[in-house]
Amino acid sequence: MQETGSISIHTENIFPIIKKFLYSDHEIFLRELVSNAVDATQKLKSLAQLGEFKGELGELKVRVTVDKEARKITISDRGLGMTAEEIKKYINQIAFSGATEFVEQYKDKDAATKDQIIGQFGLGFYSAFMVAEQVEIWSQSYKDDTLTAHWTCDGSTEFTLEEPTGEHAKAERGTDVVLHVAADSDEFLEEARLRTILTKYCKFLPVPIEFEGELINNTTPIWTRQPSELTDEDYTKFYQELYPFSEPPLFWIHLNVDYPFNLTGILYFPKVKNELQFQRNKIQLYSRQVFITDEVKDVVPEFLMLLHGVIDSPDIPLNVSRSFLQADAAVRKINTYITKKVADKLSSLFKQDRAGYEEKWNDIGLFVKYGMLSDEKFYEKAKDFVLLKNVSNKLFTLTEYTEHIQANQQDKDGNTVVLYTNDAEAQHSFVAAAQERGYDVLNFDQVLDPHFVGQLEQKLEKTSFKRVDADTLSKLIEKESTPESVLSEDDQKKLEETFKAAIANETMRVKVAALSPQDAPVVITQNEFMRRMKDMQRTGGGGGMQMFGAFPESYDVTINANHPVAQKVLAGNGTGESLAKQAFDLALLAQGMLKGEALTAFVKRSTELL
Amino acid sequence: MQETGSISIHTENIFPIIKKFLYSDHEIFLRELVSNAVDATQKLKSLAQLGEFKGELGELKVRVTVDKEARKITISDRGLGMTAEEIKKYINQIAFSGATEFVEQYKDKDAATKDQIIGQFGLGFYSAFMVAEQVEIWSQSYKDDTLTAHWTCDGSTEFTLEEPTGEHAKAERGTDVVLHVAADSDEFLEEARLRTILTKYCKFLPVPIEFEGELINNTTPIWTRQPSELTDEDYTKFYQELYPFSEPPLFWIHLNVDYPFNLTGILYFPKVKNELQFQRNKIQLYSRQVFITDEVKDVVPEFLMLLHGVIDSPDIPLNVSRSFLQADAAVRKINTYITKKVADKLSSLFKQDRAGYEEKWNDIGLFVKYGMLSDEKFYEKAKDFVLLKNVSNKLFTLTEYTEHIQANQQDKDGNTVVLYTNDAEAQHSFVAAAQERGYDVLNFDQVLDPHFVGQLEQKLEKTSFKRVDADTLSKLIEKESTPESVLSEDDQKKLEETFKAAIANETMRVKVAALSPQDAPVVITQNEFMRRMKDMQRTGGGGGMQMFGAFPESYDVTINANHPVAQKVLAGNGTGESLAKQAFDLALLAQGMLKGEALTAFVKRSTELL
Repeated sequence: MQETGSISIHTENIFPIIKKFLYSDHEIFLRELVSNAVDATQKLKSLAQLGEFKGELGELKVRVTVDKEARKITISDRGLGMTAEEIKKYINQIAFSGATEFVEQYKDKDAATKDQIIGQFGLGFYSAFMVAEQVEIWSQSYKDDTLTAHWTCDGSTEFTLEEPTGEHAKAERGTDVVLHVAADSDEFLEEARLRTILTKYCKFLPVPIEFEGELINNTTPIWTRQPSELTDEDYTKFYQELYPFSEPPLFWIHLNVDYPFNLTGILYFPKVKNELQFQRNKIQLYSRQVFITDEVKDVVPEFLMLLHGVIDSPDIPLNVSRSFLQADAAVRKINTYITKKVADKLSSLFKQDRAGYEEKWNDIGLFVKYGMLSDEKFYEKAKDFVLLKNVSNKLFTLTEYTEHIQANQQDKDGNTVVLYTNDAEAQHSFVAAAQERGYDVLNFDQVLDPHFVGQLEQKLEKTSFKRVDADTLSKLIEKESTPESVLSEDDQKKLEETFKAAIANETMRVKVAALSPQDAPVVITQNEFMRRMKDMQRTGGGGGMQMFGAFPESYDVTINANHPVAQKVLAGNGTGESLAKQAFDLALLAQGMLKGEALTAFVKRSTELL
Repeated sequence: MQETGSISIHTENIFPIIKKFLYSDHEIFLRELVSNAVDATQKLKSLAQLGEFKGELGELKVRVTVDKEARKITISDRGLGMTAEEIKKYINQIAFSGATEFVEQYKDKDAATKDQIIGQFGLGFYSAFMVAEQVEIWSQSYKDDTLTAHWTCDGSTEFTLEEPTGEHAKAERGTDVVLHVAADSDEFLEEARLRTILTKYCKFLPVPIEFEGELINNTTPIWTRQPSELTDEDYTKFYQELYPFSEPPLFWIHLNVDYPFNLTGILYFPKVKNELQFQRNKIQLYSRQVFITDEVKDVVPEFLMLLHGVIDSPDIPLNVSRSFLQADAAVRKINTYITKKVADKLSSLFKQDRAGYEEKWNDIGLFVKYGMLSDEKFYEKAKDFVLLKNVSNKLFTLTEYTEHIQANQQDKDGNTVVLYTNDAEAQHSFVAAAQERGYDVLNFDQVLDPHFVGQLEQKLEKTSFKRVDADTLSKLIEKESTPESVLSEDDQKKLEETFKAAIANETMRVKVAALSPQDAPVVITQNEFMRRMKDMQRTGGGGGMQMFGAFPESYDVTINANHPVAQKVLAGNGTGESLAKQAFDLALLAQGMLKGEALTAFVKRSTELL
């Protein structure tokens, strides 16, 4: 025996699965049915343009109405309608794609036709059964000499189809879909709920949608229009429409590409008040003016998730798994395209209006740095317009800054040392000391800056970055000549011993060095490398470093041999140690390290001295 | 014309949708096919137990093999097998649930049979086509006098079915499913990849699974056994099996319920090193020993997401949308059940071994507080075993603590005032001052504590919570008698003016009060209510408060009229103001508020005084 055959699907088994799994949100039914109605209307318009339909178009509106008493929702269009035969073909056979067939048929006649067709007939219609216990279709075809078709189905796989005549026939061309809402879907009988759904999904559909007598949509949203027709006011007005009560955007990019994929849209750079406030998922994704989702992860590059606006593309596959989306070639091209457009926009803003660009830097700096860190191509473009800010709030490009500090901040090996603070207030004494020495100090106090510093260090040649409290000033930038100690070696030794005894803390590595007499008598620093390692460990980065145990907390305590206090400590018989202790406490205080009981004791001691 | 009919699904249209949408991860195919093989094996065992099958069972193993050269993966079982007729019925008709029919047939004979059956025949099998370009089935039924059936399908809807005889027949009872792996699924020809997938999904299946000659699974994981048979070592060993390299768990709960839903499992309380380390999604969800997911959100109450372990329930609907899951009645019951079991376990630990419970408090405190905040029922149980920790690390129940402080910390209106710190180090001087006065101070320094304080304040009668730096001690807990001022009203006025001039800061509300001479000369505090409002605003809570603009930062500065410094300030002609400034700076220092330029200046001034 050998036989061949065809796998069959028992409709009564698969139907519940389609109804349940096709969409995760029940509210989608309205999007699907209204899209179908718009589709039928657009098709009729195309036929009229092609001369295939010669009758009156009339007022081509889609009407949605709800009758809470009768538990009915009706979606009516004045589109091309269906005959009983067409209903059999398009509705009774699930997943028969009517739209595809239509496009095939007319593809040579008008290229634009293809784009005007929303979704696919077939599966979407069945989402009606997610909320309805019974669905009726009343349809009158645009074709001459056809009868009204009336289809009914109770959500099982059984349907009835008839062609009522006389007073029971449908009066007008077009289709009415009537949902008899199921008991568990009462929510969809509420006018407010339906209005919310319509506003969410249908706000920008290309055919007027009327709900309970009120127009819901804007049929020509600005992203479908040419930038040359639009004013700044149009863009900011549209932004307000999308995000009411928001501050106006900083600037925007109008996206418009036909090949190798189709994409239109507007991306806005929002004004950001503080980093906590970032709202992701503010970009809305549309497909031929139908709202699809505001989860644009994987479509928009990660670092641009912070932008706002609209993207409309029929080329983004919908309803597929995330892993599939990431690998999709069209999506990857869209990603690259958007990144390039954003870089070009920033570059032209920078070049055309430096002052305006600097004003916006607080808001766009994070985007730019995030982009540089996450996308090599973006780095290459952005390195010419990324700005560094110093503690005096002056902004420099990378090249400008290197020029600015080169003369003063080159060490004896010819390396340029960039000094920075990540908290100008907490590290004030160090910043002030560096400035007194004529050095410039950058402000790297934003969330991404530690990573950004790492990146710059890798990219810039002969340049290293050191936090102002990473060492004493003469060690941060080592010059040929260093101050000499006024103390003898013996005295230095004795000084070190006295301080060690006074400090009595193993994690403090005490050493005596010859600093300038104007420097502090005691300086506490933490080695740049060790501190970065510890920071990485704290934030859980650095790969498997946890394996090696925690890095010990350790500090360098430099005693300034040339400060008058050093001589006093050496001279003071008996009081030397308590003087050393007080000098050390003041250094701790300057580093923000005098805390808890020690601070309370210090305050008490100082109060008694008042 | 009126007709009735049946909606039909064109298999060739729906088949690609089933293949693509049914599962988001391609790797699932192996789980489905191995589950089917286990199912066929379990069914045969059931038949043998019922006496319907009288032959030799033999070694009932499922074997998975891969042949990279030939691009083949084979899944073999020695289960009940299928005849050509059965293949037509179960395989060729998609979504015909073989398992359901089997259960129906035998439901009266053996209740346990039902639970042994994994999944549903039908849809799962088709996941094979996600990775294979061709699928073969070789099957020999357990029934006497049946021929081997050989089915082949290339992923279209066309199949061939034959009954080879003689040397081409299958030698043994059971089914081999052979996948001819498609070009885009090369990854699944890698032994390491397949082993990873098998270990993930099949580690605890009830029938031995052999991959390339190696046993993959533990057929009787401890959650399927009775707690009475198990030792502590069994539980900790299983924990190590689930989470290698983890520290041992603190304790565990063995879940076992039959009615009104079926659920088994073990939940472990992990040792938590720090709050950052929390790993959610560490609970694995199984359905009849098949791994389903480690995303248990919506199944496990939010506050127990931090637990580790295993939950096995056939009653949790799989493959459905999240919103559906949340509303599912079984899921809600499971939620309630787990919450109750956790509360009971904690309660018995507390009662039976208070010392052991206290040792674990650092690790479980967060769970308990999170639970109390998010679940009213849990609060009612947990209020008897939640512990409060004071700055001396002593732990109290709510009742114990109220008793502990009642005598000393009742104010003149009979309200009990609980004093707390959220940073014992930063607020050290305030804590020390409260302790000197004989007051107790609680430590509320964990992430949830601000909310927990709010909850306790609402729940406990005549009790208020104040942070130690919210006011001067005599105002924090107002008693009948307060110290009297040694200064005349005029002097107090003059003192206030001098300090106001020295401080010169609008946000500091200066007033003179009679504190104890032992108290500090100047105390800076921030009103409890204002501080909480500001904290809420900072963290984005507090509803629409942002609308009213930011609360101004403001502090109360209390000058201690009875401190010797007050007299010195009054007496010092000309130097009074600089003395006041220094006393104020020391108060700022004690509050951690002397920062930046002001701190640098203070340190410099103090260094010069050395």
